[in-house]
Amino acid sequence: MTTAHAEPAAPAPVDLAAIRTRVDGELDQFLRDKAAATEPALPDELTDIARDFLFAGGKRIRPLLCVLGWHAAGGRMPVPQPIVRAAASVELFHAAVLIHDDIIDNSDTRRDHPTVHRALAARHRDRRDPGRFGAHAAIVLGDLAMVWSAELLHTARLTATQLTEALTVLDGMRADVMYGQYLDLITTARPSRDLDRAMQIIRYKTVAYTCERPLELGAVLAGARPGVREALIAYARPIGEAFQLQDDLLGVYGDPARTGKSDLEDLREGKHTALVALALEHAKPAQAAQLLTLLGNPELDSGQADTCREILTATARPRVEAMIRTRWAQANRALDDAPFPAAVGQALRHVADVVVSRNT
Amino acid sequence: MTTAHAEPAAPAPVDLAAIRTRVDGELDQFLRDKAAATEPALPDELTDIARDFLFAGGKRIRPLLCVLGWHAAGGRMPVPQPIVRAAASVELFHAAVLIHDDIIDNSDTRRDHPTVHRALAARHRDRRDPGRFGAHAAIVLGDLAMVWSAELLHTARLTATQLTEALTVLDGMRADVMYGQYLDLITTARPSRDLDRAMQIIRYKTVAYTCERPLELGAVLAGARPGVREALIAYARPIGEAFQLQDDLLGVYGDPARTGKSDLEDLREGKHTALVALALEHAKPAQAAQLLTLLGNPELDSGQADTCREILTATARPRVEAMIRTRWAQANRALDDAPFPAAVGQALRHVADVVVSRNT
Repeated sequence: MTTAHAEPAAPAPVDLAAIRTRVDGELDQFLRDKAAATEPALPDELTDIARDFLFAGGKRIRPLLCVLGWHAAGGRMPVPQPIVRAAASVELFHAAVLIHDDIIDNSDTRRDHPTVHRALAARHRDRRDPGRFGAHAAIVLGDLAMVWSAELLHTARLTATQLTEALTVLDGMRADVMYGQYLDLITTARPSRDLDRAMQIIRYKTVAYTCERPLELGAVLAGARPGVREALIAYARPIGEAFQLQDDLLGVYGDPARTGKSDLEDLREGKHTALVALALEHAKPAQAAQLLTLLGNPELDSGQADTCREILTATARPRVEAMIRTRWAQANRALDDAPFPAAVGQALRHVADVVVSRNT
Repeated sequence: MTTAHAEPAAPAPVDLAAIRTRVDGELDQFLRDKAAATEPALPDELTDIARDFLFAGGKRIRPLLCVLGWHAAGGRMPVPQPIVRAAASVELFHAAVLIHDDIIDNSDTRRDHPTVHRALAARHRDRRDPGRFGAHAAIVLGDLAMVWSAELLHTARLTATQLTEALTVLDGMRADVMYGQYLDLITTARPSRDLDRAMQIIRYKTVAYTCERPLELGAVLAGARPGVREALIAYARPIGEAFQLQDDLLGVYGDPARTGKSDLEDLREGKHTALVALALEHAKPAQAAQLLTLLGNPELDSGQADTCREILTATARPRVEAMIRTRWAQANRALDDAPFPAAVGQALRHVADVVVSRNT
């Protein structure tokens, strides 16, 4: 930790693990306070299940990028508590998105644990229809997480200017992910050659929501001077695309023991991804027909999934891997000329490396 | 309309219809702007369906109470546009709550129109499972309405102080309704004699969410002096309880042609209401057993529903009607000593009358 007065000769590297610990500390304390409040007296299961879900894992990429955006715009260490709390509020919003997303995708596991609707169904297994109860309770708990994420921000003791600027960025971020979710939903079970549509979904759901807006949030909280936001966006766009393209590969080829989620779900749902669009574009007619028959079959077995994987590998996987490499290189080039402190550039390069090499 | 300088000799009555028109105008313009935005280019159906839902009806009680709270705390006519917009944002939040509530309650109609999940299912009737698609799309559209409601507030051009105070009230309001929804959910299909539990659900879902918090929101926006909020709460508590007790009666005895919703749903879902709790408390054992057999039966037919109604009428309906009258009188007494302008007191008495006599 540096003191408030001394500028270190060489920049200390940004300690991402320490930021994560502080973000998790904020989330933990917030949920403890909610559980301890006597009025309104909440059923314990709401805070228990929210906690289990939040602390089962997760990359915390959005709060980390928020803090890096803040550093990039000149925010100095140690990171003030209001900034950590604003970053934590983004993670709690994300939990809300995932809780609803898992209902929509009918997912059983996330982060190697039962999804929230499954956990709620298990707690209420004596109901007439526990599955339906779990889904409905998870709609409410997701809504509550969304409401709480706003409260976490509003109580962060930001200045009036910081709050106003943050709300503008967050209004955009929250709408972006919903647009992305909706586009995803209407194309699911309708895979096609339409690569542009697949990239459009990525732009809302991942580029804007996961990378651009969290970086921008941190930057406005630090009162970024002109040029900083633009430089962050020049990095965020390619790395956000790379992130989602890698995610799509992991959804099909990932090891469930590492990713914590099924490797059949995307295929069974018939997700319209860049991988699938490219496969349909480049497959021979017979392969394309076979793929279209298999994708979106909710009963797809592991043998049929392997057939899908073979076709996808033969037609599209190397293309997607090349897209990821190209975008990784673009993101790195964007950092070459960015007006950020050296330590921030290093940290963002590290994030880019992790994005393209991760297997979880 | 009064001028900014002249105090009228006798207070002009508060024109509730005019407030409603302005609130609806804000909502309409906001959705038009969203539909017209080229980036992000939304599927038209999202704004179309949100608009259809918002303008199919609705009592607008929350925005009206917000504006009345503002008047009560000394806010002068004409109501400034930022206050109207803040009131409208509460209505848009409420739309989000209803969209999700209708999924949870499996409701087909609301405001005499198809519910949002049914409307989305109808638009996508060529899907493999339109019902499932409609529910999932409505989860996302409900989330989006929630996100938009926050944006509507944040862009209302409130002062920094107004915004901070408003967010504190709204954080409470939004959590209150979610707690109430959750308590409602876990008691549904589990009707019992527990009147306290039924009244607890009412306190979160209706008293706080529908009456107290909207009035408080308006009051803090006007910079209420001490005493005003307390007086508003003294009115809001009994009238909120009366509102929900009347709603529970309408859910069972209402004319679907007037209420715009089914008169079988609450019985089929087995809602745990004060009406049902009192019936089980005061019924003879055979009646109670029969009621417990019928309530929560998803296949309940109209003959069985009539049997439920007979038992409820014989054991509980007059008690609930008496509770409503008592609370109406309490609310009126609370207004006798309230430090509000006379016109506001008149308007709040009018609201109380409407609450207890309404049949929609």
